[in-house]
Amino acid sequence: MPASPIRRLVPLADKAKARGIRVYHLNIGQPDIPTPEVALEAVKKWTGTVLEYTNSAGNASYRKKLAAFYQGVGVNVDESQILVTTGGSEAITFAFMATLNPGDEIITPEPFYANYTSFATICGVTIKTVPSYIENNFALPPVSEFERLITPRTKGIVIVNPVNPTGYLYSREELEQIADIVKRHDLFLYADEVYREFCYDGLTHFSTLRLEGIEENAIMVDSVSKRYSECGARVGALISRNREVLNAVMRFCMARLSPPALGQLVAEASLEAPADYFAGVHREYVARRDFMVEALNRIPGVVCPRPRGAFYAMVKLPVLDADDFARWLLEEFDDGGETVMIAPASGFYSTPGRGKDEARVAYVLKITELKRAIEILARALDAYPGRTR
Amino acid sequence: MPASPIRRLVPLADKAKARGIRVYHLNIGQPDIPTPEVALEAVKKWTGTVLEYTNSAGNASYRKKLAAFYQGVGVNVDESQILVTTGGSEAITFAFMATLNPGDEIITPEPFYANYTSFATICGVTIKTVPSYIENNFALPPVSEFERLITPRTKGIVIVNPVNPTGYLYSREELEQIADIVKRHDLFLYADEVYREFCYDGLTHFSTLRLEGIEENAIMVDSVSKRYSECGARVGALISRNREVLNAVMRFCMARLSPPALGQLVAEASLEAPADYFAGVHREYVARRDFMVEALNRIPGVVCPRPRGAFYAMVKLPVLDADDFARWLLEEFDDGGETVMIAPASGFYSTPGRGKDEARVAYVLKITELKRAIEILARALDAYPGRTR
Repeated sequence: MPASPIRRLVPLADKAKARGIRVYHLNIGQPDIPTPEVALEAVKKWTGTVLEYTNSAGNASYRKKLAAFYQGVGVNVDESQILVTTGGSEAITFAFMATLNPGDEIITPEPFYANYTSFATICGVTIKTVPSYIENNFALPPVSEFERLITPRTKGIVIVNPVNPTGYLYSREELEQIADIVKRHDLFLYADEVYREFCYDGLTHFSTLRLEGIEENAIMVDSVSKRYSECGARVGALISRNREVLNAVMRFCMARLSPPALGQLVAEASLEAPADYFAGVHREYVARRDFMVEALNRIPGVVCPRPRGAFYAMVKLPVLDADDFARWLLEEFDDGGETVMIAPASGFYSTPGRGKDEARVAYVLKITELKRAIEILARALDAYPGRTR
Repeated sequence: MPASPIRRLVPLADKAKARGIRVYHLNIGQPDIPTPEVALEAVKKWTGTVLEYTNSAGNASYRKKLAAFYQGVGVNVDESQILVTTGGSEAITFAFMATLNPGDEIITPEPFYANYTSFATICGVTIKTVPSYIENNFALPPVSEFERLITPRTKGIVIVNPVNPTGYLYSREELEQIADIVKRHDLFLYADEVYREFCYDGLTHFSTLRLEGIEENAIMVDSVSKRYSECGARVGALISRNREVLNAVMRFCMARLSPPALGQLVAEASLEAPADYFAGVHREYVARRDFMVEALNRIPGVVCPRPRGAFYAMVKLPVLDADDFARWLLEEFDDGGETVMIAPASGFYSTPGRGKDEARVAYVLKITELKRAIEILARALDAYPGRTR
């Protein structure tokens, strides 16, 4: 399995820190938002004496409450249609393993979440991509482009909504176009909705599990990592109405025995987080996004579309090679002992040469820190020998 | 992936419970021993506010202490040779994924831990088995039998020590015989040592990582699940001195982002468990084993060798088909509203027909409960229509 461009930068960041350089992380999806207090308290209040395996499908009490949560966002599922997983990553891997064979193909818009390449590689599956473009905010490409890629080996389409890495939020109409292809070609629709709660500008999320006519095709992947800022809990879920898929996934769940017990305690209690928790998180991300997008677009030569979901943006940089720029930021540059780490976009594209001058930035830092990080980025671009415009 | 015979019984046990039947679980490896207090307290004392991803390799502080722990049992490794995983299951899966290709073959003594079939299936790998026999306590088969199975596709040998499901503890001499084949054929040696602490009768465990001349070949898999009775923590580890293997495994670790954060807190604090914690656990298991083996051998027609490690025993039953007997126990039998669940051995054998009259029993219940469970088993054998002797 190849190392991604972002992963190759990690040791360089460590070396920079070892030299005493402060590194602002615009590269990662680890939010700084506090985990709901009620969730952390649940662990402290736990009075058990043996930290046992839970049910391989996840605790029944959690699955029941999770079903009620989904019903609250218009997704009519019950607990028998939910399998708790060790993070969203495991849900994706199990979804692929349970439904795909080596040599099969899946289609997804490009750029896409880099780890999908790893999950596909594990299963011997090929990802084919339909290009989306920064020029129109990475909107859904025409469905005819998906259809053009369908072969007898094509088994499914992968949609992340809101999109990591672009922050684009698919509309109901766009999703219905996807559903139409899925139905006509009897494909699986793998829908990664882990950023569901992060939609801005009055837009609301429409779940793929609400699409009509593809009830047996849709497999939704979810996680509490971003929703409640508890990435370390390692609790995700796979939700489907397809009994055969659920049975197949359950066998993988049984092989790995159990999802984390304490993480499930945290996740279950998080469902009791007060409404103002989300309101506060929402306000904070909107303020950060607005600040970041404006500040980035003020840098000469930089273009940053305004994302309406998740907490990422793709940014076009005035450089020939964002991989080299990202490396240079960590190895050769500092501004008063500080630098910035960005995620070069090449890791999110599989088409060679695409995204060479793009990077993903995450607005998971406080505005004061974002401000300084973007200031450093602007100075770095002034100093970088590979600057193009 | 096929469902194992044990997994097929789970819904029958649920149905029996729904009918009001009490089920004694002799089938599972979930110990009732309390988790060390110091471990559960560590979670309660944690003062963080964001439950973040940890390092994909595991927390540095935990890996450092874990290295010291291994050094204490004569295994000279440092933290750079340890990757923390989500349970031992993930360590095994990553070990296979990182070193094997679809079509490759691995060899292991039979009977063997049923989930290995799942992990091998995930990787498209074939498990070939060398028979071990209840008649000689499932000792290591002659190494010539391993050698006979080696083909150009053979990439490794899997050893679980002490053995799940037989409780057999391999001696240093036996392991050296294995090491000799591993070295001569340049194979990997995957060593699952999760029951390391459970060795009885004055015997001590000898780690495969102490074997000389196969430093680059040995990959050890470990877990805190059994050692500290914290199966729900989902914390394991992969330990190797082979840098190429570690690098390849690290890529899988990065794809799944992070092992559980709270589980690692528990695991790290468990290393501070007082010495009398283990002494107490050890005494308890020896007493349970002695009681169970004697009680089982007193049942006419039942043969149970005396295991010297782990907390399992294989038992030969006077029945034609232990799968049917296990099903019958849950579906058709009760003694005063109580019955027993056993793990039919067919799930631990890949050779068709082997182990048909055997089952695995776990001594993870208190002696009073074990006593009643074995009484029920004896009465059930009297009543079972398929009894043979």
